[in-house]
Amino acid sequence: MSQDETRNKPIGIFDSGVGGLTVAAEIMRLLPQENIVYFGDVGRAPYGGRSKEIITKFTRQDISFLMEHKVKYIVAACNSASAVALETVRGEFDIGILGVIEPGAEAAVKYTRNGRIGIIGTVATIGSDSYARAIQSRNGLVKVFSLACPLFVPLTEEGYIEKEATLLIAQDYLKTLIDVDIDTLVLGCTHYPLLKKVIGKVMGEKVRLVDSAEETARTVAEALAEKDLLRISGGEASVKFYVSDVPDRFSQVVKQFLGRGINNITRLDITRY
Amino acid sequence: MSQDETRNKPIGIFDSGVGGLTVAAEIMRLLPQENIVYFGDVGRAPYGGRSKEIITKFTRQDISFLMEHKVKYIVAACNSASAVALETVRGEFDIGILGVIEPGAEAAVKYTRNGRIGIIGTVATIGSDSYARAIQSRNGLVKVFSLACPLFVPLTEEGYIEKEATLLIAQDYLKTLIDVDIDTLVLGCTHYPLLKKVIGKVMGEKVRLVDSAEETARTVAEALAEKDLLRISGGEASVKFYVSDVPDRFSQVVKQFLGRGINNITRLDITRY
Repeated sequence: MSQDETRNKPIGIFDSGVGGLTVAAEIMRLLPQENIVYFGDVGRAPYGGRSKEIITKFTRQDISFLMEHKVKYIVAACNSASAVALETVRGEFDIGILGVIEPGAEAAVKYTRNGRIGIIGTVATIGSDSYARAIQSRNGLVKVFSLACPLFVPLTEEGYIEKEATLLIAQDYLKTLIDVDIDTLVLGCTHYPLLKKVIGKVMGEKVRLVDSAEETARTVAEALAEKDLLRISGGEASVKFYVSDVPDRFSQVVKQFLGRGINNITRLDITRY
Repeated sequence: MSQDETRNKPIGIFDSGVGGLTVAAEIMRLLPQENIVYFGDVGRAPYGGRSKEIITKFTRQDISFLMEHKVKYIVAACNSASAVALETVRGEFDIGILGVIEPGAEAAVKYTRNGRIGIIGTVATIGSDSYARAIQSRNGLVKVFSLACPLFVPLTEEGYIEKEATLLIAQDYLKTLIDVDIDTLVLGCTHYPLLKKVIGKVMGEKVRLVDSAEETARTVAEALAEKDLLRISGGEASVKFYVSDVPDRFSQVVKQFLGRGINNITRLDITRY
């Protein structure tokens, strides 16, 4: 295969459902010429509350499906999968696989001034302690404060973005992080960028929010550039969506995450992978 | 097998997760002498947002697992499974299987004075229109108003029972039902009895709430009495819990639903059934 053919291969992105679309959207914004295959495991979402064993099995299947599409690079656009499964699964596949933890951790260490970083995410992500480890491996002096915010995912999926109830729940959740004087807060779940405004309001403007979707897209661009795998040749980029259950709900929610509707959604049985 | 041996066999109860525990709790209260096997499919919860096809497959596996435990009667303590899968699956097994729709519908028709009944539940339950059909087959003149309230499940599981945020969300959701002047409201999801107080506050005291957990327990007692299957013989009743993922979270949430903690929880791989 020529290098040009390799460059034309798609970037594979997967998530437990719709959340990874915030990452896909950033990648499409930053690298509009790239072909993309997105898999949303809506039939088994959410991963966030499940065990390491089950998340690892699902992650392996998600990657196997993307490999079938001859992708050139894979993004695990799911914090839970990145946090608990990627370390185990990465060695099993002959392809570059990027999670969302490392880019977020890297950015947080770069941004903090007072060395006090907060992390919010699902129960699985927070329980895995992956962000804390990724941050402390970069700078052992940084103090990390982690907090699970389980209601943020259903709230965003229900369109409760700028409602009073969401503000009250955010105030409940985040007060422990305000008390410990962090200056940087990692939005450690791909749904959370949708709540940036309310989280920013609660935390105050002195706290810098790290959007792991943005940071991940930047890292993808760097990694592809470094491997000389950026797509150069002309022709419109193709973006394909696959889901593991009926696409109805995916279609409904997709607009909120991607900023536009889509119609090319294919359903498949992921348990066969 | 003697009739006494048959009577000693357990009642099997299943749900997508913890919600069915409200039904189990009512059955244990009403029939304290009965042996019980409970299966909570926490590894694949929630069912509420999934397709009919997937919910049907899961329901079949849940029942197969309970059949292995030589149960005498099965309760589908899950509105989503009852609403979309039970009709299909019931004929495949040689045992009495009760869902939570029929008892709730029966009670609502009995209670309403003005013939205007509201139903609240998950997206799957409401989308299936099962309550409306069950009610209208009993009384074709009754008007049914259905409403999905997807945030109620995560709110109860997060312990947001009597919080201001929950009240605001309940006011948001329920205002359309207040506008149409219902006098009876079916809590068509096994989690919702935990929100009785806040739902009652929003709807006002003139609206009667139908707790399908209570109604289902009553129907189980009647069905077992009719079949002469009520356990009579002495000895303490045995209650066993099985789940499809690590029991940690199940243990945490169970107290809220059952009113007491439990320790005999066994994990199994439900996909093998």
